[in-house]
Amino acid sequence: MRDVFQQELAEVQHRLVDIARLVAISMDKATRAFNESDVSLAEEAITEDEKIDELTVELDELAITILARQQPVARDLRIVVSALRISASLERMGDLATHIAQLARYRFPDKVIPKGLRGTFAEMGALDVVIANMLTELLTNQNMQLADKIRHEDDKVDALHLSVFDAVLGETWKGLAADTVDATLASRYHERFADHAVSIAKKVQYLGTGAWHQDDRD
Amino acid sequence: MRDVFQQELAEVQHRLVDIARLVAISMDKATRAFNESDVSLAEEAITEDEKIDELTVELDELAITILARQQPVARDLRIVVSALRISASLERMGDLATHIAQLARYRFPDKVIPKGLRGTFAEMGALDVVIANMLTELLTNQNMQLADKIRHEDDKVDALHLSVFDAVLGETWKGLAADTVDATLASRYHERFADHAVSIAKKVQYLGTGAWHQDDRD
Repeated sequence: MRDVFQQELAEVQHRLVDIARLVAISMDKATRAFNESDVSLAEEAITEDEKIDELTVELDELAITILARQQPVARDLRIVVSALRISASLERMGDLATHIAQLARYRFPDKVIPKGLRGTFAEMGALDVVIANMLTELLTNQNMQLADKIRHEDDKVDALHLSVFDAVLGETWKGLAADTVDATLASRYHERFADHAVSIAKKVQYLGTGAWHQDDRD
Repeated sequence: MRDVFQQELAEVQHRLVDIARLVAISMDKATRAFNESDVSLAEEAITEDEKIDELTVELDELAITILARQQPVARDLRIVVSALRISASLERMGDLATHIAQLARYRFPDKVIPKGLRGTFAEMGALDVVIANMLTELLTNQNMQLADKIRHEDDKVDALHLSVFDAVLGETWKGLAADTVDATLASRYHERFADHAVSIAKKVQYLGTGAWHQDDRD
């Protein structure tokens, strides 16, 4: 019974890694669609997210089946509950990638963001992809240094998010209201994406150390 | 043992109702702070959210303890897992109320939104409070008609959310970029708040009917 449980936990972990990998691919496609105004890449990002939604529902069902059949306690129980929470965060990350892809599709054939901010959004998108790849690795090998690295990259995303507001609210901003709306939303989506990664990293850390972070769902 | 379990489930439900009630209070204060530029109400909304954060962490710990001690299966198990998910959504709703309160505090003593959109935001805020109160009632009595009503009110919030973009992107919009940013963010927060309520309502319905909604985490 114990062996079966360990196998099932390994399966849960394996599926979380697969979903995280798709999240990274989806954000990569969404951010390139956004920056290059590529509507077919936007469609691909949205299709990846549909797959992510399916996989997270299946993973949740597996986790609930494990709870029912194996009735884990203590740390084992917390691993399964954490998997449910991590799955919910990954699902939201996929949604946020889709929102960015939808902005690209909506404005097509125009570019979403005026020239002055394109570098900032390219950087934010690249950071989000790096973060999602780190998350995939963290879920694979539980190397806690990666959790710190994710937090570090998230700080960079937060700084860029603030710089978008500085740009948009600055005197030299020449964008139309539509540009301001797009920049505000896209920046918020990138910031939330990285936040979810930090939240997942804290959960993985918590399982490693047993220390509950009060702010793990920021 | 069974009686203890039923008592514990009732305690979980009772706590969810308490948290939902605080969420309604927090959004009521946040939206009045936002519309009336009342910084002390904004502080109160933020304080309510801190309480919500504490209560959701405690509720999650209780739910995990119940899973470990009672080892529920089938529908009972799904009730406890759903409680964890509902708790996470309520926690996010509190965060969104805080974000709205923070916008009010940040712009004080100025009003956040220019005159032309104040009626729209007053309406969105009032709808979010109505929705949170309906949610409190739904969690109290599982009257499924309330779930449909929540969806109906959410449709109204979505329509207002779109109308904010129409206003901001229209030719008559005279707002500064700061107004555009604030309107975009506040409208998004209101919309997400209502979305979470719909998501919770679907979970309550699912427990009532056993029908899983693929889109329950929209």
